[in-house]
This record gives sequence, C-alpha cells and structure tokens, in this order.
Amino acid sequence: MTSTDQARIAALPMPDLSRTFPGPFPTSPHAEDIQAHLEQWLDRFPLLSRPEARHILCDIVAHGVARTFPTAEEDGLFLCADLFLWLTAFDDTYGEATAASSQAQLVRRIRGCVHLLADGEPPGDAGPFDGALHDLLVRLRARATTAQYLRVTGSFRDVLFGILWEAQQLAEPDHVSMQEYHTMRPHTVFARALIAMAEVVLRYELPEEARNSPAVRLPESAVCDLAGVLNDLGSYARESAKDVPNSLNLIPLITREQNCEVPAAWAAASLLGKERAATARHGLDELAASHSTPLAQHAKALDSIACSYIWHIDHARYRKV
Amino acid sequence: MTSTDQARIAALPMPDLSRTFPGPFPTSPHAEDIQAHLEQWLDRFPLLSRPEARHILCDIVAHGVARTFPTAEEDGLFLCADLFLWLTAFDDTYGEATAASSQAQLVRRIRGCVHLLADGEPPGDAGPFDGALHDLLVRLRARATTAQYLRVTGSFRDVLFGILWEAQQLAEPDHVSMQEYHTMRPHTVFARALIAMAEVVLRYELPEEARNSPAVRLPESAVCDLAGVLNDLGSYARESAKDVPNSLNLIPLITREQNCEVPAAWAAASLLGKERAATARHGLDELAASHSTPLAQHAKALDSIACSYIWHIDHARYRKV
Repeated sequence: MTSTDQARIAALPMPDLSRTFPGPFPTSPHAEDIQAHLEQWLDRFPLLSRPEARHILCDIVAHGVARTFPTAEEDGLFLCADLFLWLTAFDDTYGEATAASSQAQLVRRIRGCVHLLADGEPPGDAGPFDGALHDLLVRLRARATTAQYLRVTGSFRDVLFGILWEAQQLAEPDHVSMQEYHTMRPHTVFARALIAMAEVVLRYELPEEARNSPAVRLPESAVCDLAGVLNDLGSYARESAKDVPNSLNLIPLITREQNCEVPAAWAAASLLGKERAATARHGLDELAASHSTPLAQHAKALDSIACSYIWHIDHARYRKV
Repeated sequence: MTSTDQARIAALPMPDLSRTFPGPFPTSPHAEDIQAHLEQWLDRFPLLSRPEARHILCDIVAHGVARTFPTAEEDGLFLCADLFLWLTAFDDTYGEATAASSQAQLVRRIRGCVHLLADGEPPGDAGPFDGALHDLLVRLRARATTAQYLRVTGSFRDVLFGILWEAQQLAEPDHVSMQEYHTMRPHTVFARALIAMAEVVLRYELPEEARNSPAVRLPESAVCDLAGVLNDLGSYARESAKDVPNSLNLIPLITREQNCEVPAAWAAASLLGKERAATARHGLDELAASHSTPLAQHAKALDSIACSYIWHIDHARYRKV
C-alpha cells in the first residue's frame, strides 16, 4: 500500500451516528478505579509483556467498560473489565495474524480454556491465561445466577471458537462468505459476551420468553452488527496506516463481493453501520417504553453497550497514526 | 500392521468390570421404538448416506440410549437418542481422519453449529446437519429448564471443539500430552454431553452446591474416564483389525509415553479402566446412599451411563472383524 493510499484511507470519515446515538455518552465515576484495578490484576496475571501495549489496553478497557455500564457498581465493573481485558489480550496474543501461522498452537491454547470453562480443575502448571481465566470464573460464579454463569461461559466459548475460525479463514479469506462473516462477527467483536455480562453486572434477569422474542433479539442483533462494523472501520484504518497485514475485515470482503475499490466499500460499510444503528435505536426505544422493568433495564444496557463501541474507535488504540 | 499383529490385538481381552458394574444391564422397554424413531428422524434429516452405516448406527444408539436411561419416558429417550446420533454422525462425517485432511472445512461446518447454539437463526440453505441441530435445540428448549438448556448446549460446544482439537492433533500426535488427552476425552467420547442430558431426560435438577462438590464431581470424572478408556480399547481393536488409520487413541499414546509395545499399553489402559471403574463405583454408592433425592437420582443416572459404555463396546459397530 502506497503512502497516498494510506492518506486516502486515513481521510475516510467514520459514519455519523449523532442522530441515533447522540453523545456525550455517560461514564461511570469508577473509571480510574477500574484502570487501577486492571493494572493490579495484570501484575497478578501478566497477560501482556510489552508495557506500552499493557498501558494502552488497560486505558481503553477501563474507560470503555465505564461507558458500557455507566451506572454499575464497582465489583461488577471490575469483573467485566477483567473479562474484556482477558479476551482482548488472548486475541492479541494468540489470535489473528499470530494464529494464522500456528493454528495448532491456538487450538492447544483454547483446549486449556475449554477445560476450565467446562468446570475442569486448573492444571498444576497453569500459565497466566489459565490462571486469570480461573480467577474470572470463580468470581463470575460467585456473582451470577446459574443461568447467567452458563450463558456467559457459553458466549466465552463462542468467542474462542470465533478467534479460531478467524485464524483459519485468514489463510484463505476468499472462501469467507458475507453471511458467514456476519454470523461470527458478533462473537469476535465480543458484543455477545458483553450482552451476556450485562445481567451479571447490573443484576437483573430477563424473563426467558422475552429473551427469545423478536422485541429483544432484533435490537440485540442490530447492536452486535453495529459494533462489528465500527470495529472493522476502526481496525481497517489503523492497520492500513501502520501497513500491518489486515485481519479478517468487512472492507476487503465488500471490495471482493462488490468488485469495488476501498472508498466505495468504506461507504457501503458506513451505510450498513448507520442502518443497523437506526434499527437498534428503534428497537431500544420500543423496549425502553415497555412496562417491564427488566426489559427497560436491558434496553438501557444495550444502549450503553452500543455507545461504548461508538466511543472506542476514537481511542488511541484505534488512532490511525 | 501384519495379520499376526492384528490377530494378537484381536486376542487382547477387554477389562473385566463384572465386580464394579455387574450385568446384565437393565434396558428400556422402548428400545425398538427409539430405533424406529431414529430411522424416521434420519428420513427427515439424512445425516448419513450409506444405508449400512445408517442402520448399524441407529441400532447401537437406540439400544445404547435404552441402557443409558432405562427408566426414562419415551420423549426424553427420543431426544437423547437424536442428540447422540447427531454427534456420532457429525464426528463420523466431518471429524477424525476426514478432518485431518480438511481442517478448514471442519471449522466452517462447526461455525454453522456454533451460530445455532448461540441462538442464531437457521440459514435459508440449511443442510441436514444444521436442520437436525435446529430441530434438536427447539425440542431441548421445550423440555429443559433454562439452566439445563444452557448446560447441554455448552457441552455440545465442547464436543464440537473436541472434534476440532482431535483433528488438529491427528496431524501431529507426538505433541499430545497425556494430560491434554485426558482433559479432552470426556468431551470427545460424549460422556459429558450425556451427563448434561441426564437431568433433562429424567427430569431432576441437582442443587448447584452439590453439583460443584467433590462428592458429585469425582464419580462424574471417573465415569467419563472409564467411558474414554473403554471406547479407546474398542476403537483400537476395531481399527487395527480393519487396518484403517488409528484415530487419536490412548493405546498409541501410552506406547509412546512408556516406550512399550501394544500389549503392555493395552494392559496399562485396562488397568486404568478398572481403577476408574472402582473409583466410580465407590463414589456412586456414596451418592446413592445420601438422603437427597436428586443426588440419588444422579447416582443412578451416572451408573447407567457407565453401564451403557461397558455395553456398547460389544456392539457390532465395535466388532473386530
């Protein structure tokens, strides 16, 4: 990619979502405490070796989670932040480009996690990722109901499989269909895991019937899709600017499917983002207006999850230079 | 492998478990109905193409599940049998040796399943495996409690990951440690999935505290290990007799680890099986004698799960010639 190409991509605008999700987004008063907690947690479980990467990750996760659940109490925020940090660090360490060259190593790493997620005992020689996951699961079990625990650990498995799927497909991205991509993206962008965590962090419980209704499922899907599109736009711009190999991303998938250039693909992805934001807004407003307290709580949680994804692509981790 | 070697392996005895699990094992009066149901279900969802493979699989699953839950009502047995059939057919079709040569295809197939397990809508062009899984999940949701549903779908994910792990490791079996193997085997032999199904089929619910106690976990692990050992002995004998490439199996793992010949590895595996059977028997007797009804029900379920694995290695599917 030439520097002219890079400059052109850097100049492409992020979709304007100010009509559907107007800022400024509320944030938790505990943001700094979350960050301090994350730094301590990483002292205990050194998931990241490079100090700079560690600091920037603690910063985005702390301030992101503070926006994801701005009204939550500290303990729930700490747990959610640790969980999100773990997933991001795992993906950065073993997923994406790293894994494409060593699928076997990735499968072996995930095996250890699956063992713990399935209630297995931690091995005697547990590394930091196993140790940290075990710590997360013990705290999750203490805070969550049985169903919530199972739902979160189910979504965790889906993220891990998603990372594996992504690594496998990176070897032959031409084979990935748009439909396949859209079904996996909610997991790989961690949005499904955050939705599963919402009830644990904010201590409410959706009635099962509501959970499986279109009134809940449609805005959930829209928020997940929006998260995926925004993350892809941010990642694509960042990775192009740094000339690192692209991960599996919507932009190249669209250029291939529609046989178009990057700016046209970018416009199509932005439009998709705006459409999904509008669908989410409509569904969330309807849910919020319902007379059921847990439904209204869920609408508020989904709303702030969407806001945190909108917020995070402006963070230094996604800056283009 | 020479025919002398094959004859020698065929002559190796299965471990004698008549002291810990004395037969004859009780069986459900619905066995024939389960088989007829399975045949009909496969008409609707043609998971297997070869008529002979189809017939033999319906037979072993029907009579196996009839022994797994001999006192269960018909609907629960049908659901459990379909689920077990699905897993076996999926493994036969996409797993093991097939997958070692096409890891990408296996990952792609599992992606469709993960999507359904995570409450995704079935695709418009759903193949028989997707269609059948969707049918299973709808029926499971109707019969199970929320936590039971999540527990079974969690164990389903673990089986699918286990199949993937197995396929990956087959490419380089020298890298598999015994500890790794033992942690994955309960999933790949489907014993964990059957344990998760027990509460759904027999309609009881373990208290969470009991579930996480050593009194429950130890006999569960022992039953899972026993199932794995028996299946490995049966599979090794069958595969050696037919001279097909071995799947990932305890016998070659032991020969490598202990630098010994097959008969010595066979003896070590048999001894392990007997030890795990003794541990299971001891734990199950203690559970059965407890004053809690669900604990006693669980002991009975684990007991008959063990019996079904002991029974199944004598079935035609595992015959050595």
